[in-house]
Amino acid sequence: MSSHEGFVLWFTGLSGAGKSTLAERLTADFRERGYKVELLDGDEIRTHLSKGLGFSKEDRDTNIRRIGWVARVLARNGVIAITAAISPYAEIRNEIRGDTETEGRAAFVEVFAHAPLEALIERDVKGLYKKAIAGEIKNFTGISDPYEAPESPEFTALTSEETVEQSATRLLTYLAERGLIE
Amino acid sequence: MSSHEGFVLWFTGLSGAGKSTLAERLTADFRERGYKVELLDGDEIRTHLSKGLGFSKEDRDTNIRRIGWVARVLARNGVIAITAAISPYAEIRNEIRGDTETEGRAAFVEVFAHAPLEALIERDVKGLYKKAIAGEIKNFTGISDPYEAPESPEFTALTSEETVEQSATRLLTYLAERGLIE
Repeated sequence: MSSHEGFVLWFTGLSGAGKSTLAERLTADFRERGYKVELLDGDEIRTHLSKGLGFSKEDRDTNIRRIGWVARVLARNGVIAITAAISPYAEIRNEIRGDTETEGRAAFVEVFAHAPLEALIERDVKGLYKKAIAGEIKNFTGISDPYEAPESPEFTALTSEETVEQSATRLLTYLAERGLIE
Repeated sequence: MSSHEGFVLWFTGLSGAGKSTLAERLTADFRERGYKVELLDGDEIRTHLSKGLGFSKEDRDTNIRRIGWVARVLARNGVIAITAAISPYAEIRNEIRGDTETEGRAAFVEVFAHAPLEALIERDVKGLYKKAIAGEIKNFTGISDPYEAPESPEFTALTSEETVEQSATRLLTYLAERGLIE
């Protein structure tokens, strides 16, 4: 098992933009290299920490803050904590960045999984955009709820233009250059 | 930093029975020895993970399950996760024991901080028992809410009979004999 400093790798992006796919790819890669890594995916958190919360701004903020708290507790114990929730609000992401750096004594790396909304609507892998546009799903980020793109994320994955492999390789290079991994 | 397997050190006991005092003593000791350790105390969890939950059985169970989930995620990443919530219900503690051993792939060590209720009422450091008996605090464990003592805890600290130092020394010896610490 490699000994290393933990950090938070925070994915943000619209539904279907490839957050989870890239996060899972990175998780597998880190694990293979012997790093301690924990992927906090949105569904698992909603089951274990946020049952009962809905999708109002207040409830979303609470959910994201909980993910942030768990991530920084892991990071300050040497774990690479990867999160892959939409996390649409810049203010909350920035709050978590601050708390990670101070209370978590760890780096916060914001990764923007970016694809044009039109491309996501057209692809619509899970059929969610169709339902959201038809009004069958309320508070759907990008359609009936805001998404605030990061202004200066540490890394942007252009997921409609590059393959998962390409994004992953670039991101790993970035993390190595930062000295966060070897 | 020592390399070691994580485990969950789960304190349970009545309010004022000395859970937090002993848990803090152990946390400091582990940290001094270079172990990764995280103390999940009840107040911190209520702030970060369980705001809005009350003290009904259902809400208490939810709160305790959340602590259990965070503890086992930490433990499977090599951290000694120490919890010090009253955790009055045996069924939930046993559920968390099972989940820690399976999903967390880590040991669950239940520590019963035991003092007679009469002694706690008499001492009443925070004045909570007086208020609970007067009916000013509802759902107070031991007075107006049940406490189910563990039937076979890994360790019992007789906190009204032995000093914190004595309990801590005995507990450290037990953990070393189990091979959980050096």
